[in-house]
Amino acid sequence: MRKEELAEILEKVRQGEMDTGEALSRIAMEPVTDLGFAMLDHHRELRKGLPEVVYCEGKHRDTIRPIVETLLEKNRGNILLTRACDEVYEEVRAAFPEAEYHRQARYILIRREEKELVGKIVVVTAGTADIPVAEEAAVVAELTGNAVERLYDVGVSGMHRVMSRADVFLEANVIVVAAGMEGALPSIVGGMVECPVIAVPTSIGYGANLGGMAALLGMLNSCALGVAVMNIDNGFGAGYFANLINQLAVGGGSK
Amino acid sequence: MRKEELAEILEKVRQGEMDTGEALSRIAMEPVTDLGFAMLDHHRELRKGLPEVVYCEGKHRDTIRPIVETLLEKNRGNILLTRACDEVYEEVRAAFPEAEYHRQARYILIRREEKELVGKIVVVTAGTADIPVAEEAAVVAELTGNAVERLYDVGVSGMHRVMSRADVFLEANVIVVAAGMEGALPSIVGGMVECPVIAVPTSIGYGANLGGMAALLGMLNSCALGVAVMNIDNGFGAGYFANLINQLAVGGGSK
Amino acid sequence: MRKEELAEILEKVRQGEMDTGEALSRIAMEPVTDLGFAMLDHHRELRKGLPEVVYCEGKHRDTIRPIVETLLEKNRGNILLTRACDEVYEEVRAAFPEAEYHRQARYILIRREEKELVGKIVVVTAGTADIPVAEEAAVVAELTGNAVERLYDVGVSGMHRVMSRADVFLEANVIVVAAGMEGALPSIVGGMVECPVIAVPTSIGYGANLGGMAALLGMLNSCALGVAVMNIDNGFGAGYFANLINQLAVGGGSK
Amino acid sequence: MRKEELAEILEKVRQGEMDTGEALSRIAMEPVTDLGFAMLDHHRELRKGLPEVVYCEGKHRDTIRPIVETLLEKNRGNILLTRACDEVYEEVRAAFPEAEYHRQARYILIRREEKELVGKIVVVTAGTADIPVAEEAAVVAELTGNAVERLYDVGVSGMHRVMSRADVFLEANVIVVAAGMEGALPSIVGGMVECPVIAVPTSIGYGANLGGMAALLGMLNSCALGVAVMNIDNGFGAGYFANLINQLAVGGGSK
Amino acid sequence: MRKEELAEILEKVRQGEMDTGEALSRIAMEPVTDLGFAMLDHHRELRKGLPEVVYCEGKHRDTIRPIVETLLEKNRGNILLTRACDEVYEEVRAAFPEAEYHRQARYILIRREEKELVGKIVVVTAGTADIPVAEEAAVVAELTGNAVERLYDVGVSGMHRVMSRADVFLEANVIVVAAGMEGALPSIVGGMVECPVIAVPTSIGYGANLGGMAALLGMLNSCALGVAVMNIDNGFGAGYFANLINQLAVGGGSK
Amino acid sequence: MRKEELAEILEKVRQGEMDTGEALSRIAMEPVTDLGFAMLDHHRELRKGLPEVVYCEGKHRDTIRPIVETLLEKNRGNILLTRACDEVYEEVRAAFPEAEYHRQARYILIRREEKELVGKIVVVTAGTADIPVAEEAAVVAELTGNAVERLYDVGVSGMHRVMSRADVFLEANVIVVAAGMEGALPSIVGGMVECPVIAVPTSIGYGANLGGMAALLGMLNSCALGVAVMNIDNGFGAGYFANLINQLAVGGGSK
Amino acid sequence: MRKEELAEILEKVRQGEMDTGEALSRIAMEPVTDLGFAMLDHHRELRKGLPEVVYCEGKHRDTIRPIVETLLEKNRGNILLTRACDEVYEEVRAAFPEAEYHRQARYILIRREEKELVGKIVVVTAGTADIPVAEEAAVVAELTGNAVERLYDVGVSGMHRVMSRADVFLEANVIVVAAGMEGALPSIVGGMVECPVIAVPTSIGYGANLGGMAALLGMLNSCALGVAVMNIDNGFGAGYFANLINQLAVGGGSK
Amino acid sequence: MRKEELAEILEKVRQGEMDTGEALSRIAMEPVTDLGFAMLDHHRELRKGLPEVVYCEGKHRDTIRPIVETLLEKNRGNILLTRACDEVYEEVRAAFPEAEYHRQARYILIRREEKELVGKIVVVTAGTADIPVAEEAAVVAELTGNAVERLYDVGVSGMHRVMSRADVFLEANVIVVAAGMEGALPSIVGGMVECPVIAVPTSIGYGANLGGMAALLGMLNSCALGVAVMNIDNGFGAGYFANLINQLAVGGGSK
Repeated sequence: MRKEELAEILEKVRQGEMDTGEALSRIAMEPVTDLGFAMLDHHRELRKGLPEVVYCEGKHRDTIRPIVETLLEKNRGNILLTRACDEVYEEVRAAFPEAEYHRQARYILIRREEKELVGKIVVVTAGTADIPVAEEAAVVAELTGNAVERLYDVGVSGMHRVMSRADVFLEANVIVVAAGMEGALPSIVGGMVECPVIAVPTSIGYGANLGGMAALLGMLNSCALGVAVMNIDNGFGAGYFANLINQLAVGGGSK
Repeated sequence: MRKEELAEILEKVRQGEMDTGEALSRIAMEPVTDLGFAMLDHHRELRKGLPEVVYCEGKHRDTIRPIVETLLEKNRGNILLTRACDEVYEEVRAAFPEAEYHRQARYILIRREEKELVGKIVVVTAGTADIPVAEEAAVVAELTGNAVERLYDVGVSGMHRVMSRADVFLEANVIVVAAGMEGALPSIVGGMVECPVIAVPTSIGYGANLGGMAALLGMLNSCALGVAVMNIDNGFGAGYFANLINQLAVGGGSK
Repeated sequence: MRKEELAEILEKVRQGEMDTGEALSRIAMEPVTDLGFAMLDHHRELRKGLPEVVYCEGKHRDTIRPIVETLLEKNRGNILLTRACDEVYEEVRAAFPEAEYHRQARYILIRREEKELVGKIVVVTAGTADIPVAEEAAVVAELTGNAVERLYDVGVSGMHRVMSRADVFLEANVIVVAAGMEGALPSIVGGMVECPVIAVPTSIGYGANLGGMAALLGMLNSCALGVAVMNIDNGFGAGYFANLINQLAVGGGSK
Repeated sequence: MRKEELAEILEKVRQGEMDTGEALSRIAMEPVTDLGFAMLDHHRELRKGLPEVVYCEGKHRDTIRPIVETLLEKNRGNILLTRACDEVYEEVRAAFPEAEYHRQARYILIRREEKELVGKIVVVTAGTADIPVAEEAAVVAELTGNAVERLYDVGVSGMHRVMSRADVFLEANVIVVAAGMEGALPSIVGGMVECPVIAVPTSIGYGANLGGMAALLGMLNSCALGVAVMNIDNGFGAGYFANLINQLAVGGGSK
Repeated sequence: MRKEELAEILEKVRQGEMDTGEALSRIAMEPVTDLGFAMLDHHRELRKGLPEVVYCEGKHRDTIRPIVETLLEKNRGNILLTRACDEVYEEVRAAFPEAEYHRQARYILIRREEKELVGKIVVVTAGTADIPVAEEAAVVAELTGNAVERLYDVGVSGMHRVMSRADVFLEANVIVVAAGMEGALPSIVGGMVECPVIAVPTSIGYGANLGGMAALLGMLNSCALGVAVMNIDNGFGAGYFANLINQLAVGGGSK
Repeated sequence: MRKEELAEILEKVRQGEMDTGEALSRIAMEPVTDLGFAMLDHHRELRKGLPEVVYCEGKHRDTIRPIVETLLEKNRGNILLTRACDEVYEEVRAAFPEAEYHRQARYILIRREEKELVGKIVVVTAGTADIPVAEEAAVVAELTGNAVERLYDVGVSGMHRVMSRADVFLEANVIVVAAGMEGALPSIVGGMVECPVIAVPTSIGYGANLGGMAALLGMLNSCALGVAVMNIDNGFGAGYFANLINQLAVGGGSK
Repeated sequence: MRKEELAEILEKVRQGEMDTGEALSRIAMEPVTDLGFAMLDHHRELRKGLPEVVYCEGKHRDTIRPIVETLLEKNRGNILLTRACDEVYEEVRAAFPEAEYHRQARYILIRREEKELVGKIVVVTAGTADIPVAEEAAVVAELTGNAVERLYDVGVSGMHRVMSRADVFLEANVIVVAAGMEGALPSIVGGMVECPVIAVPTSIGYGANLGGMAALLGMLNSCALGVAVMNIDNGFGAGYFANLINQLAVGGGSK
Repeated sequence: MRKEELAEILEKVRQGEMDTGEALSRIAMEPVTDLGFAMLDHHRELRKGLPEVVYCEGKHRDTIRPIVETLLEKNRGNILLTRACDEVYEEVRAAFPEAEYHRQARYILIRREEKELVGKIVVVTAGTADIPVAEEAAVVAELTGNAVERLYDVGVSGMHRVMSRADVFLEANVIVVAAGMEGALPSIVGGMVECPVIAVPTSIGYGANLGGMAALLGMLNSCALGVAVMNIDNGFGAGYFANLINQLAVGGGSK
């Protein structure tokens, strides 16, 4: 039931055109009515700024352009194409020359609005191979209005590389750590800091890595407090989750 | 929001004590209101007859009696205690001498209402060890008003045992098949009949059976059409699912 | 033993050309004889209308046309090609211009007979990526003579989308729910309705989804009563299982 | 190297009692020195209030009392015994009569300091069997100074129960959701709210639940944004993680 | 349909009391008739000598005696109780003093008929912990009339122990190899001999052994030709399978 | 140490050219000597007739021809190329026009010797997709001198198809059953016959089939006696194992 | 064949009592003879000092004493009882009052010979719960003559604890690291040192730890070079492997 | 903090230009300082000679040359390209004609420094398909200065092949064993020798091999003492681990 319909029923009741019994019945008839517009509007308000995302892997380059064109027409926000390759970029650039392509991170960004970047999210990777996943997190965090500092390839073996960056970690409201192989880095970072750590296992590795399951299980079993885990390679989700926390920290959502 | 509250608001609107704007706002404030009483009542109506069920495994015998007493007070339906043992029965019988105990099937039934048994559900097991799970299905089906025919220990090795009962299978509106080990029986029954077959893997077996996973995977991969699968040892769910189909077949729920 | 052979033996017995001992022996010699023609005919009768299905994935386009040609010759029913792509369609269309191609759902239909559509099966998907599997279910259900209502992309996150369609759910005799990722939609639908829900996990997802295993396990563990599960991506099986239930509900199979 | 030792070395250098070469050498000798007292003090400060926790499962009742006695001597904070049973409580109460025992939640609390409770953490469970895990989260969150609202047994099947509590969800800075079986509740809550959701799979279930793995995989694959996952039954970790976020939201840790 | 019924029908046809059409119809009515008595008798004949087996694990000692009593009454063959313990033996001995108890192998044998032992089956174990499983195989093989030679604890590490027994291996018609841990012994034996090797993984091991799955997978992947595999701990099945082969070799079943 | 070397040492001892101490030392020096020529010769004798096998999957067509040429030079036996495709056949035929190509079974055979075919091995498949694996078994069995009868696509659903072929099963000394999906056929065949059944799971299936693991687990858990299992898709091993048994049955290897 | 037998044969050849043909034949008859005494003696020599080990878990206290008595009689080395509990110790102490009992490490040692302790093996644990496994390694290493330094509970979260002990690590010839949960410690230690690191996953953890599999997989996927892995909880194997390396380093085995 | 910075601070303190408080503060500010240069230098010293490694699988041939060029500029050591194919070699050879290509082992070596080869590492494979993994181990071991002896395709079935090479095994300080399928070879070698054995499972196999998991689990469960395990296909890691042990044995690292 739409707000207008409900208003109409109420008006009829007020004017005596409909008795309360019928009104009661009509509202109740729709087992769970869609009255939740307050929440929905609230939703829409908060979600403003979340970029539209197109996951390109497995999509043919011919289908990318119409999707992007539709998104460009339907709203005015940013558009992020993840897991993109050179062919996709050529296709996109032909139509939208302003598109930014980050080859290593495999994303294309059509930037149409800028948000003030607040707070501090640190995005960390164990190795260089984890960067595409980390970049998904970082770019989503930036597009939703968060200041992001990247700290890539700090490794685990050779802890001094990690520990020498403790200063950066201590400035963060929330830290995203992407790691493959044994996935030990979130435990180490989690043991150094007091802020929430979001662990993202990546599918980097081979053999008994089982497509990222070794890293995932390792992170779930972290002996460090303050570590929560995302699905394998889910950089996008990690960036959005970090955004929620950072916005709370800078006052956007506190209660 | 309760029905009474909504009625009250509508009444106030009708009497001019509340303007429609405020009414609209108060209803909308609760993002998804609990107005769905029509559906809920409908639910309750349909579910009438579903017995209260107490899963006894892992519960201390001392805690069983108070649970049963509370259930007996709160409603007038039947009460089914599953995975019960001798100790539990002694405890229950002391308080409710009319309780029926089926030791092999490991259930206790406190019967307080009788329903007419209609249609035909056939419940089959591969071996004798599968009977407790099958009995859960059978007794739930009976308590919800379905005629049940049991066909236990028809085996897989020795197909003639299965095939010689084809007459029974052909009378069923729906068949529940409980089997452990390799879980092949549902495929065979599914290949013989035209009615829906509900496959219930049991945890009977050892070694590479993996607690029923071998049977579960086998059933999910059945090459017979018309077979759907329940969780391992979920006899209760199978009996209820069969009840839904049989009631549709005898006209209780057709559209 | 064929019906004719048995008739011949009986005739010889009747005419005194064979004594009963020999007849007994000859019949018994074939340990389990193939006398079950009654059942088989019965089978064939019920199965009339089930389309011939060609699973195209992994088949070379060159091999599709001869298969279809053979099927067209051997019977007069409909032919459904699932998991088809553009190349297959070009091949098929060249030979059978009347073939209908549904690109998103990846099927080709050669329609040669129409059945009256009765009852009501609702086919639901969580996301758009689940549609090919759902369409397999829907088209099989239609070709076997069932009225189908599609409700695609109703999501789980954002429950209001699901709940606002409760009216459609309540009209169904049986509901097929296809969902990937966490596979939670069947639990939610199952909690809203009283009719049987057939859950079809899809292989949509990545990482810890394990090719659909996460959705499958979730559905098997559903806390909602009245949910049974098919193999991953088994839309065809779900459509056929729904057909069996819907036909029972409209009286086609009741006892 | 302790702060005092370093100070002493520097003092000696300043007074000319030690030359810089020797000082350099002595500091460098300890490959990675323990100079990080700033961080450590900072740690200790933040962690103040985190209760000492004793995991009782698998520990003999005789060993509990000495552990608790040692903890009581070593610090002045609260002590939380999780997975406790009646026997353990009797043992503890004999020595510390002021111990609070929550039988359903299976914890014992020796409360020695009170913190002001700020912000709002909502802790939700799907069923009653998930409460022990949820209570671990709730009590840890309270002991670290967070206001907690419990919302237990809101289920998944029967979505209206969930949705009718949307008002409570909307007040939260962060929500902890504990669920077993298919673990679908975090997806639903995540779809309703804008704050971070911490999903805790519980080991409640049987058969293909695989000791909580079904719920865990489901939560990792959640199609709702804003959901991060803890290990199975890790209520303690979830409560601490929620505390970190809530404290950021109320200003305790913002940057 | 029983043999007698069929005979009766045929007799009526012969005497003209029933026409062939009705006879045809009555036989065909029972979709798959139970005429297979020839096969069944044949079965029974072949299976004569296979001992009745009672799997004691998980059975209460009180239930063992009635089971054994019933078996003793129903047939005249041997009775084998596997996975038996001291308590069971005391119970059994009280009633059947002639029962033979093999404590290490955990079986009790009530021997009532002797068969000539022919051919040669060699039963091998890697370690002493595998002996109970191997003894199941050995005693079943002996009770079905096969000469058995035991070769226990020949190890894998320390290959000379294996190879020094090559003479025994070369005399066998078929070899049963029971091994836990990495399950490598069947590969080694399989590489030394030309006769069929039946590999039985045992659940001996810990950690990544996964209850015998490591041994099972190893045996399935054996690089030696001539190795087939049984379920974990399925000594009984291995002994029966070896019996089938050995009887073929000595001429009992050749064609 | 070669036989010649040992002979030489012994000769020197006999002629007094080497004292026994030195001889003892030289023999013992080589910790496990290679004296086992008796066994090895015996091996070679028995293995005569086993075709050389080239597994083509994953091998480039350019590498096939030199491999085949080498094999043709090195021995005079048959050569079997498995998992071959059209390209490989073209390559092979160019060099060896007499090569026989079986496209469905995906093998190429260069036949250079004929063996008398004795006994009876029956090779069965559940579906047509299992035929390539079954053909590997059948052709290996034929090349090692066994009479083979093929019984393909006898299904499981629709048991009458299986049971009507009981006559063929009863003639076999050993039966190989290849089946994918739920892998139930070996259980059914095993329940009908008294001879050994070799179950070969195939990787045919999808979703929860897990690449043949569902069929494998099903077969390992078979409730029929007399069933042993090979690795997934290991038709070659099954054919060789069947050969060993059939040769024993016809007297080639009995003791 | 024993050394004596071979010597005898050679002597007969030398004296002309046996011709070389017969000698050749008798030696070759035993396909792989047991001539490897050199190797075996060498084995025995090296293995001297390896304690006899009794794994007590799952063994009844009544069976421990006879085992120990037999071991005491058969040799003069040390005896180590692992996974021992108080009851076992009481039993052992009654008979051998000199037995040393380490309750936390759960082992009992009957020390009868002392070896000089050479080199340096460092045994590390992440937590206190890993100590029983680590002690198995440490005590085995000591009993085989290696100097052992224990470094327990150095954690992962809180890297400074690990790094502050770098001095100890740098003195080691080989390091054994026992860790449960996510098993990250070996990666960190491996990144700090140049000597071999032996990683022993322990079964400490819960939920998605899967009985130590998470730690095991993490260690196998370690991004640090120089890490090799043992089975879960295999402290004994790790201690022996470390002994082999340390003895090589101090010159006992170098080549 | 660099060594120079610390020296400067100390100098300022000595000269009275900075008071000890400020010095203390500046050093402590950096929570865990990078003072560990002793260790790092030590590291670099030891690691000298470890070749730079480029893992080519999954890298486009166009990206290989710039990587190699950068490596050639940055250091003077050897460069090893693993998992290389013909295309990569053509690309590399065009730029560096001196590159050595080992096609079977799939590596390319640009050799720029020679080290003296000391000690003895034996590298063994079960089959020819395991050679690429073994060659990774062998070439890494050689490039780090170890004498390597290869023993390829010694098999498991046909143990005489293994045992006849016992002489080679006994000369080794450490043995690397690469094996796929059931992975039994390390157990056998481990039972023959006294030196450490490094087991490397390879992904060779099919079906229930599960991509090398069968071999991995087998090796972890080895009943032979003195066997440690690497990740699947991790030849590089095995070669480096063997190098560490062999260098200890020849005195390079003893303590």
